[in-house]
Amino acid sequence: MSALTGLELRSTITAGGELRLELEEVTVPDPGPDEVVIQVEAAPINPSDLGLLIGPADLSTMHGSGTPDRPVITAEVPTKRLAAVAARLDQSLAVGNEGAGTVVAAGVNATHLLGKQVGAMGLAMYAEYCVVPASGCSVLPDGATAADGAAMFVNPLTALSMIETMRSEGHTAIVHTAAASTLGQMLLRVCLADGIDLVAIVRSPEQVALLREAGATHVLDSTAEDFDEALADAITTTGATIAFDAIGGGTLAGQILHAMEVGINRRGDGTYSRYGSDAKKQVYIYGGLDLGPTVLTRTFGMSWSCGGWLLMPFLAAAGPQVEQRLRQRVVDELTTLFASDYAHRITLTEALQPEVLAKYVRKQTGEKYLIVPPG
Amino acid sequence: MSALTGLELRSTITAGGELRLELEEVTVPDPGPDEVVIQVEAAPINPSDLGLLIGPADLSTMHGSGTPDRPVITAEVPTKRLAAVAARLDQSLAVGNEGAGTVVAAGVNATHLLGKQVGAMGLAMYAEYCVVPASGCSVLPDGATAADGAAMFVNPLTALSMIETMRSEGHTAIVHTAAASTLGQMLLRVCLADGIDLVAIVRSPEQVALLREAGATHVLDSTAEDFDEALADAITTTGATIAFDAIGGGTLAGQILHAMEVGINRRGDGTYSRYGSDAKKQVYIYGGLDLGPTVLTRTFGMSWSCGGWLLMPFLAAAGPQVEQRLRQRVVDELTTLFASDYAHRITLTEALQPEVLAKYVRKQTGEKYLIVPPG
Repeated sequence: MSALTGLELRSTITAGGELRLELEEVTVPDPGPDEVVIQVEAAPINPSDLGLLIGPADLSTMHGSGTPDRPVITAEVPTKRLAAVAARLDQSLAVGNEGAGTVVAAGVNATHLLGKQVGAMGLAMYAEYCVVPASGCSVLPDGATAADGAAMFVNPLTALSMIETMRSEGHTAIVHTAAASTLGQMLLRVCLADGIDLVAIVRSPEQVALLREAGATHVLDSTAEDFDEALADAITTTGATIAFDAIGGGTLAGQILHAMEVGINRRGDGTYSRYGSDAKKQVYIYGGLDLGPTVLTRTFGMSWSCGGWLLMPFLAAAGPQVEQRLRQRVVDELTTLFASDYAHRITLTEALQPEVLAKYVRKQTGEKYLIVPPG
Repeated sequence: MSALTGLELRSTITAGGELRLELEEVTVPDPGPDEVVIQVEAAPINPSDLGLLIGPADLSTMHGSGTPDRPVITAEVPTKRLAAVAARLDQSLAVGNEGAGTVVAAGVNATHLLGKQVGAMGLAMYAEYCVVPASGCSVLPDGATAADGAAMFVNPLTALSMIETMRSEGHTAIVHTAAASTLGQMLLRVCLADGIDLVAIVRSPEQVALLREAGATHVLDSTAEDFDEALADAITTTGATIAFDAIGGGTLAGQILHAMEVGINRRGDGTYSRYGSDAKKQVYIYGGLDLGPTVLTRTFGMSWSCGGWLLMPFLAAAGPQVEQRLRQRVVDELTTLFASDYAHRITLTEALQPEVLAKYVRKQTGEKYLIVPPG
């Protein structure tokens, strides 16, 4: 098995303020006893990948170079943004949180996976080969393709973990922002399947229509004039007291907490005092579509919390049994509830063409990209 | 025991936008089987009382009337502020969270308290008499006066509950804002006694001097130019990852979270990733000295939380055994760690003189007021 080599997409930000993306030919290490080597056949470009891929670079300065087989993209990173990425400076980092492919080599304890198509969260899957722990692989169900299994971790487990969090913290309905995202549509499908009320907040009438067509009952356009009133009404109807917010910046988190307080008081849940209702109101910020400050106008009593939420710490805290249960559900319903649609399939070399990169960094609804190695 | 009557201070905000403070002669109900009647001898004016007492009234419109024995204060409440107090409109509310006095009547199950001097959280203790559950009374230790026991609940239990919260959530040191307050000085004494590192944030050089004299090691003036750097240094030294913030509005909570992130990374606690450190950073807002928006510039990763914190919900969640342990400690150290100093003692009628009220609402450090009924 030695001497297997393959291309890997690498991202470097230099202390001098340059982002450099390139393909590197690497020797694939032999798998350890509990590891496998996956020949990657499909890896999605998720918003969570873009943070590592391009960092805080100014893409208006993007420049393509290299050769057709080994394209290189460079761009400037403004000096004042370097402090935020101090821990990664001058390191060549592999990219690609998740993907799917065929197991082409396996350690002694993982031979049962040889030749199987699996999905995995390999963290370096924008590559021809990726070494991962066998325990991190999910064997694809019969009939599923690598494209079907490429995104079976980040979005599906996030949607299911949001619901787990809701239940474990005693809430019964969810508010979700940027709800027309791939994740948002998936969360909607799971909520519909599981009978959980969802209040979906989007940012355009088109996105409202999209989610209504997908079966959503409570869809609100945060740019509408009557948004606050409509949000309070939807929260009153559903009793939602937990929100997952992908936006982060601005006043939205506080508006949601305020609408929850209105809803709780209208429903007569909780006990009113001059400190506000005693029912717990929670907003979890799990993304940063708006990197500006979170502005909370505290009109929602004292029983509230706003904080960060991430999938991996949640799963680590929930424990392996919960993670296994959620992963099994994803396998069981991979091509239904957890299906992902890709508008574009690109190779590793195409991913490093400036005009292609300029498109996939836009993260537009309905414009999802799948990387299909080899280069 | 029937026909016992006494004066009670009452606060009413009308739907028409008028605050009215007056003394009402009420008939004291007979105590239930598990209740006692306390003849109130001392009740402190805490910041937490003022919220109920004056609400959001505009005190520049304050007007005194009535008679010397039955003074009345009125003031306008701006219309736009009425929504925030909708739940209390047109109700005559008793005031005074805590106090101390002598048990003058007791139900059949509480006769052991008859004649005893007790402190209690009676919630209506700006009065000559107050009926409270026997279980809510703490008998004062030998030699302690009613003034010693008047404030044995809100501040002492808050200080101890902050430490309980710190421990139960896995933190080892505390950041406290508005730290020169009566509560802040008490928290400092407990932290010094218990060997807990405290980072005290105040708003003037005089308050820095005050706390240093009281033995504080880490005292920072948030108005100083090098505040952010000094805060990061103090948090690096102490490892504090939980803060209790009495201010609420502005950028301070976010500055503290940022300094915690810097401290964690400098200490090498937690694991760094592009999502920031994985060590949990918590700010609890327990007051509202600045009622403006809380502005969080999210430069502290994803493992953070900012939320409301109140004594009563904490104690309810902690359970009766914890509450009893904390109350016993207050009794044991009432005149040492938990001593309160009063600069002014006023009667119920004096409390309703506009020039007196104008002083005690200022909540100035070192200018604490004690109400000593009768009227």
